[in-house]
Amino acid sequence: MRPLIALYTDFGAADPYVGQLHAVLAREAPDVRVVDLLHAVPNFDIRAGAYLLPALAAIFPEGTVFLAVIDPGVGGARRPVIVNADGRWYVGPDNGLFRIVTRRAVKHECRLIDWRPANLSVSFHGRDLFAPIAARIAIGHPIPSTAAALTPPPGDWPEDLPAILYVDHYGNAMTGLRANRVDRGAALAVAGRRLQYADVYSAVAPGMPFWYENSVGLVEIAVNKGNASTELGLQPGTVVSILT
Amino acid sequence: MRPLIALYTDFGAADPYVGQLHAVLAREAPDVRVVDLLHAVPNFDIRAGAYLLPALAAIFPEGTVFLAVIDPGVGGARRPVIVNADGRWYVGPDNGLFRIVTRRAVKHECRLIDWRPANLSVSFHGRDLFAPIAARIAIGHPIPSTAAALTPPPGDWPEDLPAILYVDHYGNAMTGLRANRVDRGAALAVAGRRLQYADVYSAVAPGMPFWYENSVGLVEIAVNKGNASTELGLQPGTVVSILT
Amino acid sequence: MRPLIALYTDFGAADPYVGQLHAVLAREAPDVRVVDLLHAVPNFDIRAGAYLLPALAAIFPEGTVFLAVIDPGVGGARRPVIVNADGRWYVGPDNGLFRIVTRRAVKHECRLIDWRPANLSVSFHGRDLFAPIAARIAIGHPIPSTAAALTPPPGDWPEDLPAILYVDHYGNAMTGLRANRVDRGAALAVAGRRLQYADVYSAVAPGMPFWYENSVGLVEIAVNKGNASTELGLQPGTVVSILT
Repeated sequence: MRPLIALYTDFGAADPYVGQLHAVLAREAPDVRVVDLLHAVPNFDIRAGAYLLPALAAIFPEGTVFLAVIDPGVGGARRPVIVNADGRWYVGPDNGLFRIVTRRAVKHECRLIDWRPANLSVSFHGRDLFAPIAARIAIGHPIPSTAAALTPPPGDWPEDLPAILYVDHYGNAMTGLRANRVDRGAALAVAGRRLQYADVYSAVAPGMPFWYENSVGLVEIAVNKGNASTELGLQPGTVVSILT
Repeated sequence: MRPLIALYTDFGAADPYVGQLHAVLAREAPDVRVVDLLHAVPNFDIRAGAYLLPALAAIFPEGTVFLAVIDPGVGGARRPVIVNADGRWYVGPDNGLFRIVTRRAVKHECRLIDWRPANLSVSFHGRDLFAPIAARIAIGHPIPSTAAALTPPPGDWPEDLPAILYVDHYGNAMTGLRANRVDRGAALAVAGRRLQYADVYSAVAPGMPFWYENSVGLVEIAVNKGNASTELGLQPGTVVSILT
Repeated sequence: MRPLIALYTDFGAADPYVGQLHAVLAREAPDVRVVDLLHAVPNFDIRAGAYLLPALAAIFPEGTVFLAVIDPGVGGARRPVIVNADGRWYVGPDNGLFRIVTRRAVKHECRLIDWRPANLSVSFHGRDLFAPIAARIAIGHPIPSTAAALTPPPGDWPEDLPAILYVDHYGNAMTGLRANRVDRGAALAVAGRRLQYADVYSAVAPGMPFWYENSVGLVEIAVNKGNASTELGLQPGTVVSILT
């Protein structure tokens, strides 16, 4: 299998930061393929990033290296880590971002990165520290590191997160609820509305909001031929609850 | 020629869907180069996508595989197809998206895809069905398929579409009219204005709207040193007519 | 070193123009890696592009070919050039875009491109002329060219540009001032405010604006846990001054 690096950040696809990551990866691992998975994780939202990551990572082959950087504490005390969870690698800050991917893995291992680059900027460890490490994992070079446990992040980290994680450009709203954990007969309460399940868009009337299992296994809220985000007022962080 | 896959969708460049396509292509065809041609086709707008496609595809070499997905009917009855038109391949839904590219081709062939993946999501056939097929075409693997004619889509499909197809970030508005079919002396009526032809921006006064032949051969409406879309009120679907 | 082409334009990441560049590069140099460095240079803003370019190019390895196109004069009299500055290549219009990168280089050379493609569109020399040239440089093919000096552009081109060049999606505002030229004790005046230096975000109170050295060596204006652009009213072109 040709090695593969997947980028997962809140850097924004339009800004010059992603290109800087690609520059480092091209320099350090010129034959490794790099895929931009997502650069629109809500800004600084570690928890949204943590619950989205395992859903979006599932399609990637074993051995993929995820360079995953949502890093509001960059330049502070949080530690840089490498995680292996069920055969996939994750490189990034030890700030909670890997909490859900490790919790859901059958098997995982975590190591602190003991290497530092000659030039480490204060604000862009994604480029200076995490990208070179991701490149080395992808090409099989050893990395100075020490076994460690991930630091438990502050806040509430339930099994599934009953909140909107991401709103896409169609206006569909992904939640942190895994759809296979929610009964199809259950209604969802969100933004003062009560939504029923439907298999497909065409099963509900135009203009009707509903919930369904999206293509990465999460409960998603949509409006047939409409924009759920603007019509219901949904945004990342909006609370959702399951009515049983 | 090294094989090439070009992606053409309404998935949005910022959302995580394009990255999922790249993940599948990296897994199925690790040595094939993939180019993001356009992910900002107006949402669900099959007709705009159909008229833009031949204009944007023309620069790509023979043998290119276009993974083209504007697919509002995903999960419904529309059929998955492979089209070869003048040596380029197109993979996607049989919903009208390939109507113009085939109509304008000297020679074309269409086949229904008889293969289905083990796991086919309801809402993301781009990832689960069309991407693996595009990968197989690119690497020369046989695909179970049956010769068929494309399904005639509903609605009006004229030779050229007298409407705005796409507005770019400069505010320029591409139409579905091929410029070599429009007399340079003809005026264009759009949004209550009458626009004359100019070869280049600098041929008209600053602030003046005009029409010209854009770099992909379509009639485009622009304002010298201005934003045609906001100043004239143009958006995808706005009707244009040729005054002769 | 595997050759590398970096794209630097105001074409917008969402529009179909970048994909057209990639199509030409895939055709002309199928084994060369291509990185999208930045497509969001403020529209037509040659000067912002010129001051940003050396800062963003610094991380790229020697030998990288920058296909750099901010080209409001396309189709007019401006000349197409190739620049080599300290071992990196730059291909694009001779309109001032390369003025700062050459001024700051220890050693540089400039050549006019004497080649023209069979089909040269009026409005997209990036695709038709500059991309094929960038591909040929990357694969080491000779290019018909003539030694020349860059044309001095109109306007004021100081050593450092005391203005906002770029606002990112977090709301942080990059200036054209190199941070190693500004005393850490100096305050910055911008939009009627007086800002002090801080090493890191966490050194200032939440909601407080400040300036710091960003990851590409420029003075950047930010607000801890806030959006400097919207809160201070900053945009590309906003004037900044150093209070000493």
